[in-house]
Amino acid sequence: MQNMELKAETIRVVGPCDTWLFPLKMKERHPLEYVRQFPHLRCRNNTLGSLLRIRSEATAAIHSFFQDNGYVHIHTPIITSNDCEGAGELFQIEASNEARESAEKTHFFNVPAFLTVSGQLHLEVMTGAFTHVFTFGPTFRAENSQSRRHLAEFYMVEAELSFTENLQDIMQVIEDLVKTATSTVLSKCPRDVELFHKYVAPAQKTKDRLEQMLKNKFVTISYNEAVEILKQASQTFTFKPEWGCDLQTEHEKYLVKHCGEVPVFVINYPYDLKPFYMRDNEDGPQRTVAAVDLLVPGIGELCGGSLREERLPFLESRLQRLGLADTYQCRVWCPKKVQDRNNPDCFWTAVQNLPENRYLDLRKFGSVPHGGFGMGFERYLQYILGVDNIKDVIPFPRFSHSCLL
Amino acid sequence: MQNMELKAETIRVVGPCDTWLFPLKMKERHPLEYVRQFPHLRCRNNTLGSLLRIRSEATAAIHSFFQDNGYVHIHTPIITSNDCEGAGELFQIEASNEARESAEKTHFFNVPAFLTVSGQLHLEVMTGAFTHVFTFGPTFRAENSQSRRHLAEFYMVEAELSFTENLQDIMQVIEDLVKTATSTVLSKCPRDVELFHKYVAPAQKTKDRLEQMLKNKFVTISYNEAVEILKQASQTFTFKPEWGCDLQTEHEKYLVKHCGEVPVFVINYPYDLKPFYMRDNEDGPQRTVAAVDLLVPGIGELCGGSLREERLPFLESRLQRLGLADTYQCRVWCPKKVQDRNNPDCFWTAVQNLPENRYLDLRKFGSVPHGGFGMGFERYLQYILGVDNIKDVIPFPRFSHSCLL
Repeated sequence: MQNMELKAETIRVVGPCDTWLFPLKMKERHPLEYVRQFPHLRCRNNTLGSLLRIRSEATAAIHSFFQDNGYVHIHTPIITSNDCEGAGELFQIEASNEARESAEKTHFFNVPAFLTVSGQLHLEVMTGAFTHVFTFGPTFRAENSQSRRHLAEFYMVEAELSFTENLQDIMQVIEDLVKTATSTVLSKCPRDVELFHKYVAPAQKTKDRLEQMLKNKFVTISYNEAVEILKQASQTFTFKPEWGCDLQTEHEKYLVKHCGEVPVFVINYPYDLKPFYMRDNEDGPQRTVAAVDLLVPGIGELCGGSLREERLPFLESRLQRLGLADTYQCRVWCPKKVQDRNNPDCFWTAVQNLPENRYLDLRKFGSVPHGGFGMGFERYLQYILGVDNIKDVIPFPRFSHSCLL
Repeated sequence: MQNMELKAETIRVVGPCDTWLFPLKMKERHPLEYVRQFPHLRCRNNTLGSLLRIRSEATAAIHSFFQDNGYVHIHTPIITSNDCEGAGELFQIEASNEARESAEKTHFFNVPAFLTVSGQLHLEVMTGAFTHVFTFGPTFRAENSQSRRHLAEFYMVEAELSFTENLQDIMQVIEDLVKTATSTVLSKCPRDVELFHKYVAPAQKTKDRLEQMLKNKFVTISYNEAVEILKQASQTFTFKPEWGCDLQTEHEKYLVKHCGEVPVFVINYPYDLKPFYMRDNEDGPQRTVAAVDLLVPGIGELCGGSLREERLPFLESRLQRLGLADTYQCRVWCPKKVQDRNNPDCFWTAVQNLPENRYLDLRKFGSVPHGGFGMGFERYLQYILGVDNIKDVIPFPRFSHSCLL
């Protein structure tokens, strides 16, 4: 269906194209896997064209959301000497051979340097100066995975709020962000979104769920409740649900289904499951922390956030519990990695690269209660469009064994 | 001077700070080199606080400029298997030891992978689908330089326009972008900008020049004219100006001064000076290309752009001239590097990584006249604020021998 017709009087061929050789065929609905082979041509395919327009509008909507709410945008660094998540799945960078020779074969930056996995710690630096900050940039994981859910290079939206003493404040920002960005995209590119909901997403479900999502408040359950729900489930899980264990994808999917296929906040996770910087809830002796994950239909975890431990003695006691009493005082910037105390290599990497204890400095010199969150941008696009494979929502996907162009 | 006074009835200390130990002192104007030592605290310094607010507003203004003019925003990849500029000053990336073991010591991406030096070639891909595209992201150079002008990680604004047959179109977008972003910043953060113009920039000059810049049309001279001006200069240069040689910083500074300390476009550079993708002007046998550089007071080159060679036979003849007649046909994506035909390593790197001739494909399958430009975002900030050292206009500067946090 088209709402206009063209009556051409002359036609000028600007650049000819041999349609026999051109791999995308007119009026043919190529599978997304097929067009993925042609990273330099696939943007000319309807679906990818729509995706890229939507991605552009979503990017603009996210920037506007934060700007309109008084957030300062920070370009957190891509190259960093720390490992925020401590997962060890890092890309290391070094000047390439040619350039390296001139640097006399030492590290270009004197220390080992990596691609960032999160801008959080750098945003925390900024909460000492600004009430609200955000960043929206590329992050990296050297995960040797070919799954539909992982990319080596992907985009994260991260925000950090000062003078925030309640996890609800963080959750409100997440909910507002998801709803505002989604309504903007729906109103700015209705036809592009329709293409996805009609031809790509499972029939009607994604569209209906989005409409429900925009109308209703997100559901909140505690981690305790989540474990109870899972224990009472008739379904058998590969991983048995148990208090103190991480929620697996199968658990997350069940919880979302149990709540009616709507976005679900899960809050207050076990203390020992989460990174060192999350704030102790004081509901027991180091029992839970003020952490939140947002689970959404079809995806699982879309956002993760927490209040950060702003109290120096609590942070110190946590580091002590991790067995770092002797060394952390002059060294640690980002020690989640050192939690693996049985691995001397991990520990050494963490302490060697970081000559000063700058993270504790942030607590020593005028600390304020603060917290924040991160949202995976590609997962967000998959969620609103119903796209199964994360490789189809980014212009040039990078994953293990593949870096085309 | 303050326009309000506070009458506090009680004061609550949220987080104490030992002012003797805290390295930034009240009412003291620390030199920028001093605060640079404290990357985790320097945002609390007035000057850096102002800078970061200005940087945030400038970022938003640039995004708005392009969105308002119908450009689609593209996240061009950070990790890439090509070297757009061919300068050889690349960072190579690899999964760090831990993750690499599991990948059995092969390249994570199967091919050598690098940090991007420019998004141009990826934007050119997009001109096959969209009339106007832009990107605004980090770019990298492994330059072993401690100069005031270079960073290993910096931000570039890049745009590409389809159906553009005239260099003037590109220059108009550059001029509009610089003027729009600057007026937005001046009106959104007048006090922050004033701090720079008053305390950081050389007295008054920067402010006056900006006002002049906003009012007048940018000056345009050809490369031919530029060389004539330089030849007739009373000043002696370290590098003798000569047709066919690159303009050096000393030349750029002289040209800007000669034109009255205003922004100056220099156009139509010698064919052999510029990368393979620039469009032949046909003013001689391969004499000049439709290239443009924008020079500004105090900085030198702020933007560089060109029409791209969209005609397949011209591109092929250029590659032939570069001595690639036999090999390029099935291999070349980005062969500036291969211009160095005496270096077999360079050539091999270029052809080995790129299994197919995807760049020529863009010309074979419906090529359109197009062109674009890139602007260094930090240089732009230095220009409007009068900041001497590029390390002072980015939150976490990365340069050789330094990657703090």
